[in-house]
Amino acid sequence: MLKCQTCGRIYKNFKIICKCGGVLDYISEIGNNFDSLLKKEFLDVRRYLEFLPVKGGFLPKLILPITPVVKREINGIHVFFKLEYLMPSGSFKDRGTYVTIAKLKEAGIKEVTLDSSGNAALSLALFGKSEGIKTHIFIPAHTSEGKKQLLKFLGAEVHEIQGSRMKVHVMAREVKKGLYISHWYNPYFVEGTKVIAYETYEQIGNVDYVLTPVGSGSLFLGVYKGFKELKLLEKIKIPKMIAVQGKGYESLCERSKERSSLAEGIAIPEPPRKKQMTKVLTTTHGTCVSVGDREIKEALSELISMGFLVEPTSATVYAGFRKLLNEEYFEKGSNVLMPLTGSGLKNV
Amino acid sequence: MLKCQTCGRIYKNFKIICKCGGVLDYISEIGNNFDSLLKKEFLDVRRYLEFLPVKGGFLPKLILPITPVVKREINGIHVFFKLEYLMPSGSFKDRGTYVTIAKLKEAGIKEVTLDSSGNAALSLALFGKSEGIKTHIFIPAHTSEGKKQLLKFLGAEVHEIQGSRMKVHVMAREVKKGLYISHWYNPYFVEGTKVIAYETYEQIGNVDYVLTPVGSGSLFLGVYKGFKELKLLEKIKIPKMIAVQGKGYESLCERSKERSSLAEGIAIPEPPRKKQMTKVLTTTHGTCVSVGDREIKEALSELISMGFLVEPTSATVYAGFRKLLNEEYFEKGSNVLMPLTGSGLKNV
Repeated sequence: MLKCQTCGRIYKNFKIICKCGGVLDYISEIGNNFDSLLKKEFLDVRRYLEFLPVKGGFLPKLILPITPVVKREINGIHVFFKLEYLMPSGSFKDRGTYVTIAKLKEAGIKEVTLDSSGNAALSLALFGKSEGIKTHIFIPAHTSEGKKQLLKFLGAEVHEIQGSRMKVHVMAREVKKGLYISHWYNPYFVEGTKVIAYETYEQIGNVDYVLTPVGSGSLFLGVYKGFKELKLLEKIKIPKMIAVQGKGYESLCERSKERSSLAEGIAIPEPPRKKQMTKVLTTTHGTCVSVGDREIKEALSELISMGFLVEPTSATVYAGFRKLLNEEYFEKGSNVLMPLTGSGLKNV
Repeated sequence: MLKCQTCGRIYKNFKIICKCGGVLDYISEIGNNFDSLLKKEFLDVRRYLEFLPVKGGFLPKLILPITPVVKREINGIHVFFKLEYLMPSGSFKDRGTYVTIAKLKEAGIKEVTLDSSGNAALSLALFGKSEGIKTHIFIPAHTSEGKKQLLKFLGAEVHEIQGSRMKVHVMAREVKKGLYISHWYNPYFVEGTKVIAYETYEQIGNVDYVLTPVGSGSLFLGVYKGFKELKLLEKIKIPKMIAVQGKGYESLCERSKERSSLAEGIAIPEPPRKKQMTKVLTTTHGTCVSVGDREIKEALSELISMGFLVEPTSATVYAGFRKLLNEEYFEKGSNVLMPLTGSGLKNV
């Protein structure tokens, strides 16, 4: 069942945005034993099927891997990088798309619209293509030609909009080509990203801090939800959630005058789920940190040195980690989780 | 222990090529129960550590995922695509590099040379960078600027050679910058690719046919070796091994006059392990099929429609499958495995 975070309305059937315009959350009903709910015959995302609001028959044919976790010791902190970029379309967005596509199939919806110029669009177009769901992608006109070509090649109808990212968003909602399923709102998207917490728990056990890049919050809120559900199952400690944002586009940290151009994937100054995120920061005693292009560049170079071929937005979390490390924010010997979100292969 | 396939010499220590110039094979000593040898606490490549000739302490820090297997029903055949392109450097080569790096670390070797212009070079440079091993990459001078830049960015010393791919190979062997570890010879590389068979067995059980692209044979021979070892452990049936080659560069099929330019990753007309491959074709009652650019293009387009963002060389197996399907080669209801080898994200 879905519950509106603004007016409290309840929906039993498929819905993306509440009638009142508020964001919806899926209210999960989880059993009480993590281990017994695992589908151990699977070594991929289906291992965690019991925790997802989807029926097996509607799952997409394209399957997601369990992403590896790589450990590094940095200044007495146990750092765990989760390689979310090793996904079929090259980013963690496939997790949200995977569940969304299952729900679309269940609801019999065959035509959808999304506004995005980046990874979310590529992910939706790829899964849409393989499942026969028609996709309309609204993008800023200045998006790179290569990206447009790939989206078209994947059968997406590409709508180029002159103007800001916000203008693109408004147009996508107004034009109404198929159902609008923006990941800024989509409650099923978060159900997909929460699997990161389940996988991590099975891979390394307890985590003390999590850093994620925060734009619309679909990763931040998903990972938090996963840990919250795990707490009901296993009495784990919920980690401190740390939001990392790009300078100039902060929605949770104080807004900077400097503007990051490298953190393009999270340049969303007014996300609809802002209030929910603020609550997570308070509840988990987390924090928000924002980073600029110089810091992102340095972090990216260090990540690549460690063998992680990622894109600049992915490096924000490591830049944020470095910043907090300098401030001696982390307790010595603690476990810090950082999902690395997008592949750098696209930039070769 | 290593055994030369030409002169029969035995080596107990690290070695890439036999004194006589012949290819070496690692002779594995495997226990006798698959399930009990699995390290089930791991959901990544380390799950199969007991089957690898490496000690845990020398493993690379960068970890490989277990790649998903996606099932499709095609004309009454159960087709299983294994998504080998979801690897840290974007290709299956990381499997061979992973074991090779472990062996280099064990032997204390810190400087190596490889000739390749493609995925093997990128894989070695990436792991070399993250492990502090100096890499020399010999490539044809006409290699794309983007690829050269990335290799340099990863700290590789790039040696550009004027002339054919064979000239590049000869120069790499002669110049002797660090140890020459060509994957055409390297016996440890095959130990890495064999894990595909182990994973597949755990994921879907028995397989009747396997199609792989065949250039140097490091994938073809690795997968075969994995199934051969599994037979000792589990009494499985070894699948029929099908070699797929690019037209004009066939080493196992009859040489065509037409030359494929799309199958660039397997354009190796005289691989050192040719004799071994011929033997595998005979032993498993397999076959060889060669495909041209038109067939590869069609296959690539169909693969992308299924959600697999791969590069052209990866599509050769599906082109080969289509060809054999038309000839009614496969028994109805049989299980056909196709590893999809390299990411198409690089071409965005």
